Amino acid sequence: MPNVIVVRLGHRQGRDQRITTHVFLAGRALGASSGVLCGDRDESVIRGITRVSELWGGSFAVKYEENWKRYVLAKKKQGAVVVHLTMYGEKFEQKIHGLSGKDLVVLVGAGKVPREAYDLSDFNLSVSSQPHSEISALALFLDRVFAGKELNVDFNGKMKIVPNKCGKEVVRGTND
Amino acid sequence: MPNVIVVRLGHRQGRDQRITTHVFLAGRALGASSGVLCGDRDESVIRGITRVSELWGGSFAVKYEENWKRYVLAKKKQGAVVVHLTMYGEKFEQKIHGLSGKDLVVLVGAGKVPREAYDLSDFNLSVSSQPHSEISALALFLDRVFAGKELNVDFNGKMKIVPNKCGKEVVRGTND
Repeated sequence: MPNVIVVRLGHRQGRDQRITTHVFLAGRALGASSGVLCGDRDESVIRGITRVSELWGGSFAVKYEENWKRYVLAKKKQGAVVVHLTMYGEKFEQKIHGLSGKDLVVLVGAGKVPREAYDLSDFNLSVSSQPHSEISALALFLDRVFAGKELNVDFNGKMKIVPNKCGKEVVRGTND
Repeated sequence: MPNVIVVRLGHRQGRDQRITTHVFLAGRALGASSGVLCGDRDESVIRGITRVSELWGGSFAVKYEENWKRYVLAKKKQGAVVVHLTMYGEKFEQKIHGLSGKDLVVLVGAGKVPREAYDLSDFNLSVSSQPHSEISALALFLDRVFAGKELNVDFNGKMKIVPNKCGKEVVRGTND
């Protein structure tokens, strides 16, 4: 799968801790390669994701970047396509075919997103033009980019769930 | 579209306010008919969703139910299929074809979900067997149930977004 990096813009410590963590967990579970935290430096988010990856597998990790703009511009120079998810953007369904298979940087805003994020992005895309959640928007975006194949990835973790009709079955993975 | 009700189990005031709001906003934007809040009675969540529907359209509303079990059993009696989204469940992709077009009650847990929710549900389904977010899980589940058609619904709201390549364009809707 191509390299897809989820960049959380404008994270606010305290207020956004759980939502930002869910953004990264959704990214990890649905095929993204790594996460970048911008805004407030919040070690609790980074540690939380690290713990999940240690236990449940895969190589997804989050790092902090103080200067989101410099980071995104550097990625663009390296050839990544920058997609900003915003309810105001163009319909993502119409653009997704051109994005599959490419290295992507996906910008997901917390508070008000700076104007520059719209300008720097190759695509400003909306997942429905209704207000909902950056987590659900990211989920549907990744699902379309990966055409549903992200659900079949084996994370090869220390812990592994055995799908169960009416209970919980967790086994030690082969990586333990 | 069939009647799909999103039931949030075990909401904890304060701790879950934003996540629960995102659950319902995702439900609303992605085709669910209504929401039911269980756990702590939290008027701020209900008011928030009401305001969104007033402005952006549609008939989605959230009501509070003190006794989730009684509510779910009554819905079952009326013929709804009860689906509990849990990372421990069976793979949702394998069951979705049998659920499309049916009236559904979708249980989404906040804290630890009581054993009875597993037992009462017709299906315990996982959206990937990795930990992520109830918001992303609900989004992908609804998207599959409605086969992507939920993204084309016209909410006929007072406010309406015109999809834009690089900015924000909001117009007064026909319902104003």
